[in-house]
Amino acid sequence: MSANSESSLSRLFHPRSIAVVGASATPGKIGAMPITLLRQHGYDGGIIPINPRADTVQGLPAYPDLAALDGETDLIVLAVPAEHAADALAHARPGQAAGAVVFTSGFAEAGEPGRAAQQRLVDVARSLGIRLLGPNCLGFMNVRDRVYATFTPAAARDAAREGGIGMVSQSGAFGAYAYSMAQARGLGLSYWISTGNEADIDVADCIAWLAGDPRTRVIMTYMEGCRDGGKLRRALDAARDAGKPVVVTKIGRTQAGARAAASHTAALAGDDAVYDALFRQHGALRARTIEEFFNLGYALDTLRHYPRGKRLAILSISGGVGALMADEASDAGLGLPEPAPAAQARLLQHVPFASARNPIDVTGQAVTEPGLLWATAQDVLGDGQYDAVAVFLAAAGSSPALWPTFEAFAQGLRDKFPEVPAAICALFPVERQRQLEQQGCLVFADPSAAIRTLGVIASAFADTLSAHPAPEALDDAVATLDLPAGGCNEVQAMDILRQAGIPAPALALVGSADQAVAAAAALQGPAVLKIVSPDIAHKSDVGGVKVGVAGEPAVRDAYAGILAAVRGRRPDARIDGVLVAPLLRGGVECIAGAHLDPVFGPVVMFGLGGVFVEVLKDVSFRLAPFGRDQALGMIREIRGYTLLQGARGEPPCDIDAIADVLVALSRFAYRHRASIGSVEINPLLARPRGQGVVALDAVIAPRP
Amino acid sequence: MSANSESSLSRLFHPRSIAVVGASATPGKIGAMPITLLRQHGYDGGIIPINPRADTVQGLPAYPDLAALDGETDLIVLAVPAEHAADALAHARPGQAAGAVVFTSGFAEAGEPGRAAQQRLVDVARSLGIRLLGPNCLGFMNVRDRVYATFTPAAARDAAREGGIGMVSQSGAFGAYAYSMAQARGLGLSYWISTGNEADIDVADCIAWLAGDPRTRVIMTYMEGCRDGGKLRRALDAARDAGKPVVVTKIGRTQAGARAAASHTAALAGDDAVYDALFRQHGALRARTIEEFFNLGYALDTLRHYPRGKRLAILSISGGVGALMADEASDAGLGLPEPAPAAQARLLQHVPFASARNPIDVTGQAVTEPGLLWATAQDVLGDGQYDAVAVFLAAAGSSPALWPTFEAFAQGLRDKFPEVPAAICALFPVERQRQLEQQGCLVFADPSAAIRTLGVIASAFADTLSAHPAPEALDDAVATLDLPAGGCNEVQAMDILRQAGIPAPALALVGSADQAVAAAAALQGPAVLKIVSPDIAHKSDVGGVKVGVAGEPAVRDAYAGILAAVRGRRPDARIDGVLVAPLLRGGVECIAGAHLDPVFGPVVMFGLGGVFVEVLKDVSFRLAPFGRDQALGMIREIRGYTLLQGARGEPPCDIDAIADVLVALSRFAYRHRASIGSVEINPLLARPRGQGVVALDAVIAPRP
Repeated sequence: MSANSESSLSRLFHPRSIAVVGASATPGKIGAMPITLLRQHGYDGGIIPINPRADTVQGLPAYPDLAALDGETDLIVLAVPAEHAADALAHARPGQAAGAVVFTSGFAEAGEPGRAAQQRLVDVARSLGIRLLGPNCLGFMNVRDRVYATFTPAAARDAAREGGIGMVSQSGAFGAYAYSMAQARGLGLSYWISTGNEADIDVADCIAWLAGDPRTRVIMTYMEGCRDGGKLRRALDAARDAGKPVVVTKIGRTQAGARAAASHTAALAGDDAVYDALFRQHGALRARTIEEFFNLGYALDTLRHYPRGKRLAILSISGGVGALMADEASDAGLGLPEPAPAAQARLLQHVPFASARNPIDVTGQAVTEPGLLWATAQDVLGDGQYDAVAVFLAAAGSSPALWPTFEAFAQGLRDKFPEVPAAICALFPVERQRQLEQQGCLVFADPSAAIRTLGVIASAFADTLSAHPAPEALDDAVATLDLPAGGCNEVQAMDILRQAGIPAPALALVGSADQAVAAAAALQGPAVLKIVSPDIAHKSDVGGVKVGVAGEPAVRDAYAGILAAVRGRRPDARIDGVLVAPLLRGGVECIAGAHLDPVFGPVVMFGLGGVFVEVLKDVSFRLAPFGRDQALGMIREIRGYTLLQGARGEPPCDIDAIADVLVALSRFAYRHRASIGSVEINPLLARPRGQGVVALDAVIAPRP
Repeated sequence: MSANSESSLSRLFHPRSIAVVGASATPGKIGAMPITLLRQHGYDGGIIPINPRADTVQGLPAYPDLAALDGETDLIVLAVPAEHAADALAHARPGQAAGAVVFTSGFAEAGEPGRAAQQRLVDVARSLGIRLLGPNCLGFMNVRDRVYATFTPAAARDAAREGGIGMVSQSGAFGAYAYSMAQARGLGLSYWISTGNEADIDVADCIAWLAGDPRTRVIMTYMEGCRDGGKLRRALDAARDAGKPVVVTKIGRTQAGARAAASHTAALAGDDAVYDALFRQHGALRARTIEEFFNLGYALDTLRHYPRGKRLAILSISGGVGALMADEASDAGLGLPEPAPAAQARLLQHVPFASARNPIDVTGQAVTEPGLLWATAQDVLGDGQYDAVAVFLAAAGSSPALWPTFEAFAQGLRDKFPEVPAAICALFPVERQRQLEQQGCLVFADPSAAIRTLGVIASAFADTLSAHPAPEALDDAVATLDLPAGGCNEVQAMDILRQAGIPAPALALVGSADQAVAAAAALQGPAVLKIVSPDIAHKSDVGGVKVGVAGEPAVRDAYAGILAAVRGRRPDARIDGVLVAPLLRGGVECIAGAHLDPVFGPVVMFGLGGVFVEVLKDVSFRLAPFGRDQALGMIREIRGYTLLQGARGEPPCDIDAIADVLVALSRFAYRHRASIGSVEINPLLARPRGQGVVALDAVIAPRP
């Protein structure tokens, strides 16, 4: 985001005065709500109703149109029908306002006439230097400054609780619901923004702006899609660089959801797997459910430090629930190392029936002996090996007699182990819960939710946010690659990949049996002979492949046999020649590829061959370009990873070499994004560690 | 459960008088709490304190011991230390009491002396005809009759809300927490039972008893393990036969959880995959998290009808959240068929920007036009194609003006579509929510949780509870199978399986080259020759296998070659002969097996060969014996199922024939459970549909 854009958004979100065009006195009308809410919640800037048919609105002096205003007004709220919006805005003078929020619907979401009206509105705004939020949006709130530039009734009941969560939603309905959920869960907001049709300001702009906003610690966003992939990537990077986690809910994870999303937001639909890769790659935490969305936002805003690793200590007063939490920790990818032997011994000496490994069961003794919990926690956490602690107190949280114990416990944790995030699982009354939260302690009723939330955060911070180096700079240089008209054959494709730094054997394309013999003789072992033709996709089906050919007579036979077979079955096919390649065996067959996403550009794919790709769809994606850490991440992410680690008595594969290929492929695909539509290396043979990988066949298709 | 056992439990859980041994006047003591609670909550039976050192306890006349009581007392509460418990109980007369609840710990859970004390207690109780609940338990509550035979402080604050949920927990801490969670969520309980050490009455007894209890609609249980697998199976069947869903939380799903569970309850640990199979097979709904546990209990107790299938209608006032719900429906295995064309047309005519497919987006218009939601629901549900409906109202639930609309909506659903379960997703005030629930309507704040819950219930009822015929009778007949000492070779194993009804080619075991030639000539194609020796597990490694042998000279060569190779490399090995088998190719290689579980007896396993079993551990289990529906269920359950359906252009496999093999294997393993330790058929070749399956190799091991 340019400095100019940033400052115009800052003026928009911090207006000293607000003009409401279409201001109304009728309760509940969208032209009445913002004035009502601004006054109800104590906004102390100027409120200027614009209404040509009234002298005053809600007791405030009204103006007939924007032209009638003398001075500046930072923000214009447009609450007039779509067909009048552009004209109403056109009354403003250049520089008069920083931004306009457009509530009304009937624009691009409503078909052709609306699209034209939206374009006119955008043109007018641009000519006046006014940034647009909406149209077809619920507006925004700046909680600290009590700017309620919105008409959602959700804001009419109570003022939002002020806090560190900046919330951005493309959907107004979701946004209003999220506002109410945040109120119900006691989450504090810095800003609440609904972007609607995104004719100008989009979710990415808001994320980037919130990344620079000092009041915001955590960004929570709901997305249906995006039009400018590069902008979104830069926005997520800005948030990561600012140390502000971004929690995302995006619809369309499944086929059914994607179908529904496409019918809801035709223009924005895209490949969900690519969004998923984007979020992983840029450190955003994707929530699968609304509950997870709020659990993550709650935890990220409440904790004072985020976990630096994935080692969890579980303290429970019930062995059974401790085991249940261990199940959940295992699902969440958290490790449960045992406490130091001395700490174990001390607990067992004190409570012989305790379980001192991890999960640590202090038993019901913790209820009768108030100091036990804190003593055990000090002992266990003392050696510094844990990144987070989860505590289950069963029904004891409902017992007022124990509250001082738990508060001292939370206080102790904060003072002595400030960098170990803690979650207490119990049923506390709300005001007790808030006190613990103010100590930086998470409180959950459901221990499973506590562990899951810690797990997602720990994974994000351990794997992505802190362990990874700065993201690849998006070097926008484009190199042109002259692909043969109609695409290149596999000999050319392998040559191109080799030049891109991807190991691929030099293939000989021969035009005679003599050449074939010479090419085969140059190899160190038996050869593979294959027909090369732009017209033949499935070479084996037409007798175009001979495998394991050794010795001059066999090579001559194979050459002649291939040509005869192909000419017999496909007399029409153009034939480039016959390819002579070394026969390579041993290792695990993988697939690597790249394709162009309409929003995000080149995307690299990795998977194992055979049933893994074809039946299990077990593949991972990253947006190009990327470095080794991302490449290693996408290798480890597939379910078949164990096979690469050396399952079934096989040696482990050369995973570093696979990562090198993926990095090279990502740079190649990105650099040549103007020329190349897709690349598929299949198989990419991953050989045992130290022996590298080799591309055995490849197809490169030009950009359509 | 015998009628006698049932009546003794009924008397225990409905006592007309209760003697408290170890009765105390000191607030908070475990001998004081039950008396306090019984009086506080208005129990109207007799309360008889037993305390040799007091004339009265809490104002009630006390007796020195049980012998001093004249009449009967249905229930004895034992709140005395472990070392005195048996002696205290021994004062009772035979027939004086139906049952005793033993609160105190220090029994079997505390090592050897405690184990002996527990055995003495059991012996005394049995000699007096007294059923035991506990020891080391929190007791029980009978909510309607206000029997609070417990010392959990959780019950001290408010009386439990009365309702249809019978709750049984092995863990006291979990039980107490679950009680508080149930209170917090407004769930109504019939009984709350903590079983502790289960010296006599266990979770299975309680499930079976609750299955016959008219006040209980739903059974919620927390388990760590069980000792009597057959009893638990019969109890779950009794609940299913009574139409009462059982929701289960069992710890130990993961390795980490199982390790923790084992250290917590050494005697009860078992293979979690087998429990999982048990729950599927007997129709219990397993909850993965505590939240899911309560969501399921809540929904099952609130709904008046359970879904009969998996077709869901989604009605939303937000297209985006509708898509989010579609994602969740897809994950939950729910289908989203489109409404009838006429219903779609009517909605679109009325609201042109609506989305009339499914999810159905009625748009914010539903807020401004109160009748729209119900009109749309009537239209959509009218053609009878939906099994459930989920409705998202966004923040509108917080708007009092709309409450009459939503109540009319819920009332309309109930009156007109009583058999279509409905979930409304909104943030209502508690009292509004209760009103909707009283109409049989579910209310969730999180639409994801609503859909997930409906999905689990629909799957359970569609797949297991209603669609399936009555479970297999557990015929206890045992047949003896004389396996050769030291196990049988594969020729014998294949003969045994063939007799059990499993297709397996007749293998010839030959002792000479002439016999091999004759055996190969009798086959219709090429042969496989293999060494047969009890000492050689990996035949290929010693040159003991020749594949694709055709014609007399080749057979003679192969025979001689195998013997020479084996004698050269393993001169010590005993040789039973050489096996001549037909070479069969084509189809998908599967694995089927059976093993003996220490708690549940023979368990059958199914999976695909190769990476599916070895790398992905993609296998399913069922307890033997079972019928075709269960067999088909276990085939469909594996992730590689698509391969059996004919992935990659292959024809679909003969799935019916696989099911027949699994059924036959389950009956065989069950019938011969006294003789057989394990069976492994690997590979089991599944051929194209209509061509059956064939066992290509098998190992049968005797019971150790």
